[in-house]
Amino acid sequence: MINILKNKTILGALFFVSISDAANANTTISAEGQYIFNTLGFYIGGVLVAFMAAGFCMLESGLVTTKSVSTIAAKNIGKFAICSLVFFLFGYNMAYGISEGGYIGKFLVWSDSSKIGTGYSDHSDWFFQTMFVCATASIVSGAVAERIKIWPFFIFAALMAGFIYPIQMGWQWGGGWLSTKGFSDFAGSTIVHACGGAAALAGVIVLGAREGRFSSKGEKKSMVPFAASSIPLVTLGTFLLWFGWFGFNGFSQLAMGTFSDVNAITKIAVNTHLAGAAGTVGGAVITRLMLGKTDIVMMLNGALAGLVAITAEPLTPSPILAIFIGLIGSLIMYFGTKFLENQKLDDVVGAIPVHMFAGIFGTLVVPLSNPETNFGTQLTGVLSVCLFSFILSYTVFKSLKQTIGLRISKEAEKLGTDKAEVGVVAYSIRD
Amino acid sequence: MINILKNKTILGALFFVSISDAANANTTISAEGQYIFNTLGFYIGGVLVAFMAAGFCMLESGLVTTKSVSTIAAKNIGKFAICSLVFFLFGYNMAYGISEGGYIGKFLVWSDSSKIGTGYSDHSDWFFQTMFVCATASIVSGAVAERIKIWPFFIFAALMAGFIYPIQMGWQWGGGWLSTKGFSDFAGSTIVHACGGAAALAGVIVLGAREGRFSSKGEKKSMVPFAASSIPLVTLGTFLLWFGWFGFNGFSQLAMGTFSDVNAITKIAVNTHLAGAAGTVGGAVITRLMLGKTDIVMMLNGALAGLVAITAEPLTPSPILAIFIGLIGSLIMYFGTKFLENQKLDDVVGAIPVHMFAGIFGTLVVPLSNPETNFGTQLTGVLSVCLFSFILSYTVFKSLKQTIGLRISKEAEKLGTDKAEVGVVAYSIRD
Amino acid sequence: MINILKNKTILGALFFVSISDAANANTTISAEGQYIFNTLGFYIGGVLVAFMAAGFCMLESGLVTTKSVSTIAAKNIGKFAICSLVFFLFGYNMAYGISEGGYIGKFLVWSDSSKIGTGYSDHSDWFFQTMFVCATASIVSGAVAERIKIWPFFIFAALMAGFIYPIQMGWQWGGGWLSTKGFSDFAGSTIVHACGGAAALAGVIVLGAREGRFSSKGEKKSMVPFAASSIPLVTLGTFLLWFGWFGFNGFSQLAMGTFSDVNAITKIAVNTHLAGAAGTVGGAVITRLMLGKTDIVMMLNGALAGLVAITAEPLTPSPILAIFIGLIGSLIMYFGTKFLENQKLDDVVGAIPVHMFAGIFGTLVVPLSNPETNFGTQLTGVLSVCLFSFILSYTVFKSLKQTIGLRISKEAEKLGTDKAEVGVVAYSIRD
Repeated sequence: MINILKNKTILGALFFVSISDAANANTTISAEGQYIFNTLGFYIGGVLVAFMAAGFCMLESGLVTTKSVSTIAAKNIGKFAICSLVFFLFGYNMAYGISEGGYIGKFLVWSDSSKIGTGYSDHSDWFFQTMFVCATASIVSGAVAERIKIWPFFIFAALMAGFIYPIQMGWQWGGGWLSTKGFSDFAGSTIVHACGGAAALAGVIVLGAREGRFSSKGEKKSMVPFAASSIPLVTLGTFLLWFGWFGFNGFSQLAMGTFSDVNAITKIAVNTHLAGAAGTVGGAVITRLMLGKTDIVMMLNGALAGLVAITAEPLTPSPILAIFIGLIGSLIMYFGTKFLENQKLDDVVGAIPVHMFAGIFGTLVVPLSNPETNFGTQLTGVLSVCLFSFILSYTVFKSLKQTIGLRISKEAEKLGTDKAEVGVVAYSIRD
Repeated sequence: MINILKNKTILGALFFVSISDAANANTTISAEGQYIFNTLGFYIGGVLVAFMAAGFCMLESGLVTTKSVSTIAAKNIGKFAICSLVFFLFGYNMAYGISEGGYIGKFLVWSDSSKIGTGYSDHSDWFFQTMFVCATASIVSGAVAERIKIWPFFIFAALMAGFIYPIQMGWQWGGGWLSTKGFSDFAGSTIVHACGGAAALAGVIVLGAREGRFSSKGEKKSMVPFAASSIPLVTLGTFLLWFGWFGFNGFSQLAMGTFSDVNAITKIAVNTHLAGAAGTVGGAVITRLMLGKTDIVMMLNGALAGLVAITAEPLTPSPILAIFIGLIGSLIMYFGTKFLENQKLDDVVGAIPVHMFAGIFGTLVVPLSNPETNFGTQLTGVLSVCLFSFILSYTVFKSLKQTIGLRISKEAEKLGTDKAEVGVVAYSIRD
Repeated sequence: MINILKNKTILGALFFVSISDAANANTTISAEGQYIFNTLGFYIGGVLVAFMAAGFCMLESGLVTTKSVSTIAAKNIGKFAICSLVFFLFGYNMAYGISEGGYIGKFLVWSDSSKIGTGYSDHSDWFFQTMFVCATASIVSGAVAERIKIWPFFIFAALMAGFIYPIQMGWQWGGGWLSTKGFSDFAGSTIVHACGGAAALAGVIVLGAREGRFSSKGEKKSMVPFAASSIPLVTLGTFLLWFGWFGFNGFSQLAMGTFSDVNAITKIAVNTHLAGAAGTVGGAVITRLMLGKTDIVMMLNGALAGLVAITAEPLTPSPILAIFIGLIGSLIMYFGTKFLENQKLDDVVGAIPVHMFAGIFGTLVVPLSNPETNFGTQLTGVLSVCLFSFILSYTVFKSLKQTIGLRISKEAEKLGTDKAEVGVVAYSIRD
């Protein structure tokens, strides 16, 4: 038996076929077992992130006024479809077809080349990544609601999924120049959230505010004419986003087939959950102190801001640090919302403070727990991505405005986009 | 060591207990490991398909008028319960108790006989299959809404879950005569969707249209009196159905414990997703072109039609073919909806065009990518299942009509089923 | 080869590292493989139980009147956050820091000490357990709706998550005195549901009924002024709770890495599903017989009561027994609801009959299928937990009432908590 005991690795190679292909040779799981675990991880993660599409849709449906609800639903399901198709046709390789340290990928249809040695099914990877691009485009949808035309929005979403998102994403997750520089953004505080938020900001600027939203003195008008159509749907949406984040952050570990990977996934889940919890409390406390009421919308956006802030680095912080990151992200969202209002920027759902401001913050504090990057590098990453996304989005929105038109007519706005654009009123709750 | 290397299979038998029982002997996962993966797959798949029950409920709740919303909720949760109980008591063995090439199973309570050699837990299989029968009955529920009495509907649902669905399902998935003939229906474009759609058609014919739905000249009345009660709930329902489809189609692979199985699951997820996406775009484009508005309901039903169409064969098509199948399924749904309206057939939610018409189409185009069947065989399968389901359902609805009564009174219909049948109004949104 | 065949265990120790650490040595899965499966089980289970938080929120949002919907949303998301933070800071160790046979754990922040030998990631365990405490606090939230102040409720929720729930939970699941005595409560009919229900009862008693809910003669007022705001949201909430239960009960097996564990999980899923189904039918039949209408709310609460009742022992009953347990749980809920109304106890959503009454029933009938306990022991457990939870909760509510105040003013109640406390109306569905 001595002989056999000495030849552990040879026997290992025998029983655990192609163990040398496996991501982690120092494991007792066969390469095929790891392949299944990793693929299953992407699959579960992808389904959870898909729930975020429904979450964004509910959140936005609930926050717009009654006369724009069908339109926001159409925009959300349409964007989910269009972004997926475009990301398949060329977006994916625009990101991952990049060369090491490069700036842009290839214009090429996605294709599968799964082998046991790749460690996971390519299909599962595409599935997971696609749900990310849908999330990015969702961020824009809410901010520009109630006055953008549907089809120009769809064109923007297609360009977002085909070029704007994948190009900058390839810089980092495709191994491009930002990655080479040492930038760190685990699950996308910047790559997804600030990128989407910067695009939303461009849209909000180009479109202008909804009619009558601000008085001539720049004060926000009293809430009645712009009241949220359904708070329970906003809450449901936030819950769905929160749960989706367990997949979004957790499976951004990109592997589940070893002791250390599955540990990472669950540590990420705990930190993500605690950051969201702290963000919720932040929104409750700040509004109670500042306004005398416990504002449900700020609690929900606080939760989301906390979740966005932890997304850049959900693995290395201690749970206590995660709580603080979530809490501060929430406060940044609150004051950012006030700042935008003061600037007469009409972000219908608060997408910019939640995703861009909290996302930037989360990215900048990565060095607090992760010594492999530093503040300067993080700042470089944030600025590059935000500027890139803002400038391209601004250009696209401007071009649309000057060609096919971007904003609905004043008459249509008075009537509401549901009647003007979709032809289906959202509610008929009178009997 | 040479000796040992030569005796790989003997050692394999030693370490990987009862490997000969495993579905795929050419794998490095032990039979127990495969058993866990397969069972987990059924479990996750079953939970995802369960979400379709909630999805159908939201979709139907949103599409009916305000005065029938509580009723549709009662019908959906009731049907979920009744179908599960009946399928346990005898439906399952009415399907799977069939002999090879046979026509009908046994009248027998479900029971468990899981062994490691069976490859997965029988409980997980029952769980997964039960969610399918609930989906089938859901298809009927929406079509006959707003005028059917609750308890006759429950009786129909019980007969559907106990006889109509399982008998024809056994023909194919239980190894009965259709399977022997070479019919191919991977996850149920015909077995689930067209079967449910044909039953819905029978119900719609026997019941007749809602009062005032069509003018004497057969024109559909203007939308106001029959306006959907809540578009965001319809959209939420569609998203839940879409995500449920990842389990519905993906885990119809029925195994996850090998490289090839998990690859199949994720390839299916990609094709399913792309078909749904293309269907959504189809609904948007066709209504924009034909009606001048981008109709959200047709986008949502387009998504579902795309998903139904790919269900017969989500594994063998290329992604590009999947996109075309989804797109054409969506167009068939659109023109099918118009056709039914012209026939004065009042399908409240569009269940027949979505599930039956797109399901038939999807089944007939299986030979495009799967050479193991042909058009004639597919047509045989479609016709047998649809006729069987239609004739039995028609008979059941007629019998109910002539005995305990099927349709609520005219007074009740004016009042709405919520007040007449359930005694609970759905919304009290006035303060 | 003979030699090798005889040395199976030695070779096993060689290839399957630290197999002696594994929960079940008689398995072909390596300790690392089991670790991943178990951890993944907690993760999936935790995500499913998280959906219950959304489910409770939708259920409660739909059952309260229109003027308290934003508040119930704020209470649900706030409680989700606060309970998670508190359970991290000391609740977890207040439960699991208990000594064998002991009465109380330690006041100590949660920390991770995952090793392969522990069989699963500590993070995944915390994640799963946290979702349970959130569920327990949710039960209280609905019962005391429409008249409790938000911040006193948050303080109560924090004390519930930090002390009341974990102390009694440690008695059983932490290995404390109840566990030593032989009490059996698999997934928490008593530990979670009756505990939460008893706390809800204390709250309802201390707060008193909503203004005008009962006439001076104790009759419940006609439904109009207290009509549920949205039945579809109640239904959605019930569906989400039902699906969450698959994680709640299923992964309370606490392991998935062996043949027997994964079998147990799926058997539990089947029994849980059938009990919920039988409970739904119970609610439909009893209201049809007693009231002449098929009451949707009683069907939904019937489903939940069936699910609660099976939770104490979802593994050992036959499916037929599970059906009867669910059915009787539902009837107990129905008559319990009437009983509370007769006592002028205003439980807005029926949390006490669903969670406490059906939970007690489910716990007491465990000996029917599980011979390892007996009626006397079960009764001891139920009484200890309910009295402990009721007395502590009553004390907390009373103290809050006499210090910072518990109930909103009469003016605020007339105005509705949404305007008075949250400053955001839930719906603006008029255009």
